[in-house]
Amino acid sequence: MEIKPEEIEILNKSESSLPIDFSDKVNTSLSKRLDWRYLDLRNPDRLLIFKVLNTVERAMKEYCYKKGLIEINTPKLMSIASETGAELFELDYFEDRKAYLAQSPQIYKQMAVASGMEKVFEQGPVFRANPSHTSRHDTEFTMFDVELGFIDSEEDVMEFEEKWLQYIFKKVKEKHGEEIDRTFGVEVKVPEIPFPRVTWNEALETLNEKSKEEVKEIGSNEEKEIGKHVEEKNNHEFVFITEFPYEERPFYHMKKEDDPNITKSFDLLFKGLEITTGAQREHRHEKLMEQIKEKRMKAEKYKFYLDMFKYGCPPHGGYSVSPTRIVMKILELGNVRESTLFPRDTERLKP
Amino acid sequence: MEIKPEEIEILNKSESSLPIDFSDKVNTSLSKRLDWRYLDLRNPDRLLIFKVLNTVERAMKEYCYKKGLIEINTPKLMSIASETGAELFELDYFEDRKAYLAQSPQIYKQMAVASGMEKVFEQGPVFRANPSHTSRHDTEFTMFDVELGFIDSEEDVMEFEEKWLQYIFKKVKEKHGEEIDRTFGVEVKVPEIPFPRVTWNEALETLNEKSKEEVKEIGSNEEKEIGKHVEEKNNHEFVFITEFPYEERPFYHMKKEDDPNITKSFDLLFKGLEITTGAQREHRHEKLMEQIKEKRMKAEKYKFYLDMFKYGCPPHGGYSVSPTRIVMKILELGNVRESTLFPRDTERLKP
Repeated sequence: MEIKPEEIEILNKSESSLPIDFSDKVNTSLSKRLDWRYLDLRNPDRLLIFKVLNTVERAMKEYCYKKGLIEINTPKLMSIASETGAELFELDYFEDRKAYLAQSPQIYKQMAVASGMEKVFEQGPVFRANPSHTSRHDTEFTMFDVELGFIDSEEDVMEFEEKWLQYIFKKVKEKHGEEIDRTFGVEVKVPEIPFPRVTWNEALETLNEKSKEEVKEIGSNEEKEIGKHVEEKNNHEFVFITEFPYEERPFYHMKKEDDPNITKSFDLLFKGLEITTGAQREHRHEKLMEQIKEKRMKAEKYKFYLDMFKYGCPPHGGYSVSPTRIVMKILELGNVRESTLFPRDTERLKP
Repeated sequence: MEIKPEEIEILNKSESSLPIDFSDKVNTSLSKRLDWRYLDLRNPDRLLIFKVLNTVERAMKEYCYKKGLIEINTPKLMSIASETGAELFELDYFEDRKAYLAQSPQIYKQMAVASGMEKVFEQGPVFRANPSHTSRHDTEFTMFDVELGFIDSEEDVMEFEEKWLQYIFKKVKEKHGEEIDRTFGVEVKVPEIPFPRVTWNEALETLNEKSKEEVKEIGSNEEKEIGKHVEEKNNHEFVFITEFPYEERPFYHMKKEDDPNITKSFDLLFKGLEITTGAQREHRHEKLMEQIKEKRMKAEKYKFYLDMFKYGCPPHGGYSVSPTRIVMKILELGNVRESTLFPRDTERLKP
């Protein structure tokens, strides 16, 4: 097609020599592309990644709104560590106090449920002072958190999450399916419900059947193996790993009624990558006090969190996912920085 | 009405003596209520505030999605200050570098527009190390940012914003109008379009007509006066103040073509409180270089920002609002901490 303009209005001029070639005619390193992100994204293939991310995040919220969840915005400046205390960013607050950047909205989404909001979600940044530099980890990224009150067990949380993901994938396929296929050569599959479930023990057994050396833990390599195994056996890109041992989980995960060594928790793998950790939380004050002692943590430090369970907190559970990780795997990008608009890692604080 | 349950299942017990009375039968200070926020919100009147906030934030996003804006998540860890450099939280990053918490996503939303996304929005936390302790200021709060590419002038931005606000207020009135009236004794008024507009000069003239002493600046007291004046004259709760002098605005606001002392910028007042600052941005590299020098700022420090304008950045403009401030004023709460779930100020880092 040929276009013959009758008039052209020049809104702004560009220097003719560009610092990077964004047409992909020459190979530009990811790092250099990220330095010049606003030019990098003039390549429509790359801009598509963020249109897909937009659809994913929109669908995530839409589904939650439809199901009556209340959106919350919780503080990122905290007086204590949200998880184990490792990988924390610390800063000077007023009057010589220290503040920490939130690694997760865990405490606050539970508080919102206990407040009477019952079912809540939050989309916001989380911060991890993680010194490692892998293709899956950033020092700051967006997390989508869900917390549901009045559940019967962690199964209610998994059922919510699989329907939620099915909704999200439907929207992505409808809106971008063909373009994704054309651009990235990937078929977007809307996952069938229910997702396959294997217990942590079953997963280890399967891994040990295939391995010469004894497998005792499930790390990222083992997750890949399990993902592949389920894809072959069940023709499904998702799998829940359930019943994690208590020693692998934080103190606030609820233990199984019939086996105190096992938690009512789960991970969700998508194409062999962990995208979710979830659980039913312990909501009984006396049990939490027991469990925090078992984990050798200082109860006084978490008093403002633990006190909440003294005043009739309902049974509840939830999960979190990183939208950029999901998009990375949908499009099979190989590095989470490809689906993060302006990534942050140990070396990168710019642009 | 009397309810006779046939069966009661006790999900969790509460201690019988509560640390605060949330029924409002006795007067509990705001500070103490916030210490026990998850009990405070068991009062349905208070929980309503966050249902309204949820509706406001949902409508904000819905309207943007409908108009084709792309949602972005930009980093809160930055290598430079986003505004003037004052009131910055600083933290240690890797390898003895310093990082700063973003005071606004200004730079990044402009970059997203320049990237080819054209129209974008973001909802996320902003951080201000503001040592003052007023009813309107927190050290961390949620900001909703909009940036629109290919505009003709700041008028396009104001037109977008007033339609957006009309949509939001419609949703609030539909969903909560009666309950708000019953609970807070406030009528939610859906604002008519266009909103009244007065220039900064006109506003000063009006103020000086009413005042004995000469008024030279528009601070929060003057904003109240202007809001009251417009409400009486135009029967409208909103008013745009336009044409701010260049000396009152940051270097990246565009100057008027016919008067370099005046910017193409605006504030929006709602019931006499400033809820928005907005402007057309300067998108021409040479003009920006001039303006940054006029403001006596170091261009080298902002190189990665300024470089963006060398490569054909389109005309654009935008605005930002704090959803909690809007809700505070809709419900006439008197303190922004009433509409902030877990507020942060100079003294408060908990819960």
